[in-house]
Amino acid sequence: MPKGPEHSLLVVGSIAFDSIETPNGSVEDALGGSATFFSYAASFFISPRLVGVVGEDFPDDYRRVFVQRGVDTTGLVTQPGKTFRWKGRYHQDMNTRDTLEVHLNVFGTFDPQLPAQFRDSTHVFLANGSPTLQALVLDQVQKPQLVLADTMDLWINTQREDLLKLLPRLDGLLLNDSEAKLLTGDDNMVRAGQLVRSMGPKFVILKKGEHGAMLISQDGIYVLPAYPTENVVDPTGAGDSFAGGILGYLAADESPPPGRLRQAMAYGTVIASLTVEGFGLDRLRGTEREEIETRLENYRSMLSF
Amino acid sequence: MPKGPEHSLLVVGSIAFDSIETPNGSVEDALGGSATFFSYAASFFISPRLVGVVGEDFPDDYRRVFVQRGVDTTGLVTQPGKTFRWKGRYHQDMNTRDTLEVHLNVFGTFDPQLPAQFRDSTHVFLANGSPTLQALVLDQVQKPQLVLADTMDLWINTQREDLLKLLPRLDGLLLNDSEAKLLTGDDNMVRAGQLVRSMGPKFVILKKGEHGAMLISQDGIYVLPAYPTENVVDPTGAGDSFAGGILGYLAADESPPPGRLRQAMAYGTVIASLTVEGFGLDRLRGTEREEIETRLENYRSMLSF
Repeated sequence: MPKGPEHSLLVVGSIAFDSIETPNGSVEDALGGSATFFSYAASFFISPRLVGVVGEDFPDDYRRVFVQRGVDTTGLVTQPGKTFRWKGRYHQDMNTRDTLEVHLNVFGTFDPQLPAQFRDSTHVFLANGSPTLQALVLDQVQKPQLVLADTMDLWINTQREDLLKLLPRLDGLLLNDSEAKLLTGDDNMVRAGQLVRSMGPKFVILKKGEHGAMLISQDGIYVLPAYPTENVVDPTGAGDSFAGGILGYLAADESPPPGRLRQAMAYGTVIASLTVEGFGLDRLRGTEREEIETRLENYRSMLSF
Repeated sequence: MPKGPEHSLLVVGSIAFDSIETPNGSVEDALGGSATFFSYAASFFISPRLVGVVGEDFPDDYRRVFVQRGVDTTGLVTQPGKTFRWKGRYHQDMNTRDTLEVHLNVFGTFDPQLPAQFRDSTHVFLANGSPTLQALVLDQVQKPQLVLADTMDLWINTQREDLLKLLPRLDGLLLNDSEAKLLTGDDNMVRAGQLVRSMGPKFVILKKGEHGAMLISQDGIYVLPAYPTENVVDPTGAGDSFAGGILGYLAADESPPPGRLRQAMAYGTVIASLTVEGFGLDRLRGTEREEIETRLENYRSMLSF
C-alpha cells in the first residue's frame, strides 16, 4: 500500500448494513455507510484511520474487509445494540431513490472519540453528519493539513448556523448541486459554488451524480464529467468513494500543487464509476490499483481533444 | 473566413422571430431559429449555405446579419405572409422553459428546394424538422460526405417510422438525453446512445444541456462537460450553435480522423457557451474567432489532469 511518509488520513462517519433494491436486483444487509465506502476507496492509496461505531451484530467477516485493506480500525468501536441499518429503493433511472427504512441504532448516539494515536492525522474526512458532530471531531485533531467535509440538505435545513460556523474551518466542502442551491439560493452552479466558497472553505466540490463534478477553487472553475458506464448496478456509495479517492490520493501523493486536486478528482471519479458497477462494495472488492490506473488513462484520453 | 477547399456546408432549418422571457430580462422579435444559430456558429469556420423561408416582414437588418458573416443566402426564400414566430419563458433554473406561443406562418408550409448550386454540398445539417421533410432535403443532395440531423420528442412520438427510415441515411444524429430515452426506452445514457447508433447513424451525440454532451461512435464513448459559465442570460440556440460549431469545424478542417469529431465537439461546446451569455445572437455577434480559440484553450486546460 503506497503511503506518503508523513501523511495520515482520518475518516469519521457511518458504518451500516445497507439493504438496497434496484430495478435490476436487490441485496440485504450489505456492508455500507459513508466511512466504509470512503476508507475502502482511500485504501488504494494509503492506509486510512477509521473512526466509527457498530453494534454487537457486526460480523467478523465485515471487520476483516477493513483489516485486509490495511484500514486502521483502532477507532472502530463496538457498542451494545445493533448496527446502523438503511434500506432504500432506486427508481428506474437510477438517479433518484426512496429511503424505505432508517434505523440509526448505535449510530444515533455516536460520540466520536479519536484514539490518541489518531490525533496527529494530517488529512481528515468528516463524512456526512451533523455539523455539530463534525466540529467536535475536528476539535480533537491537533494540526490538520487538509480537512474535507461532506454535508446534506438535512443539515442545511436544520443546523444552518452550525454549518456556517464549521465552513471556515474546512479546506474543502463536498455537496451535491441541489444542496448548493439550497445553501446559497442560486440556481447557477458556478455562482452557487463561488458563493459557498465565500462562506469559508478554500475549495468546493459540487457533485452532480451521473453528470460528474465541478471544482471551485482559487485556481478557477474545473469540470469533470462522470466516467461513462453502461453498467450501473447500484449507485450507493458513489459519493463517498469519490471522496475517498480524492483524499486518499491527496494524502499519499507528494507532488506539488496546483493540479493535484484535479488529478485527485479524476481518481475519485474513476473509483466512483467502479463502485456503481456492483452492489455495495462488490465491485471495488474485485478491483486492484492497476485497473484503476487503466481506467484513469482511458478517462484521460476520453477528455483530450 | 477559412474554408476547406473542396468542402461546402448546407443547413436547412427554421428562421424565426424569438420573443424570450427569462428571470433576468426579456427580448422581443430577436433573430432566431435553428438555421440562424447553426449558420452563425458555423460561419466562424466556413461560409455556410442557408436554405430557409421568411415572410415579407423579415427586415433587411436581419438579412444583413447572414450576409455579413459570409452566409450564402441564395436559398433564403421570402414568401407572402409572416415569418415564423416563437415565444417562450425560461424557468428560474434556466434549464426548463414553457413555449407560450408558436406561429409557424410561412414556415408551416415550408417546402425546401435546394438551389442548383447547393446540390453538391459535402456537409449537411438537417436542423430539427419532420423526418419526412429532412428526407426530402437529403434526396436533393447529390453526394453528401457527412450528414448530421437534429430531431425532437415530437417526431419520435408522431413520426417514428419516418424517423427510423431516415436514421440509416445519416452519419450523425443529435438528440437530447430525454429524447434518447424516449426513442430507445433505456434510462442509461451509454446504452441508449448505443441503441440509437444501432438504428443506423454512424455516431450519436447526446446533448445534456448544462451537463454537456456525450458522443457514441465506433471509437467508443466520449463525454464532454459544458463549459462552465456563471452568466447564463438566454439558453435559446445553444443546441443549434453547438451543432454549427461541430459541423462548421468538420467542414473546414482538413486533418484526419480520429479525434476530429471530439475537437469539433469542443468547438461546439465553446460556441454554445458563448451563445447562452446573451439574448439570441447578441453574444455571438460580439465575438471573434480569437475569443473562441482562447476559450477553447481554457477549456482544454480545464479538462486536463
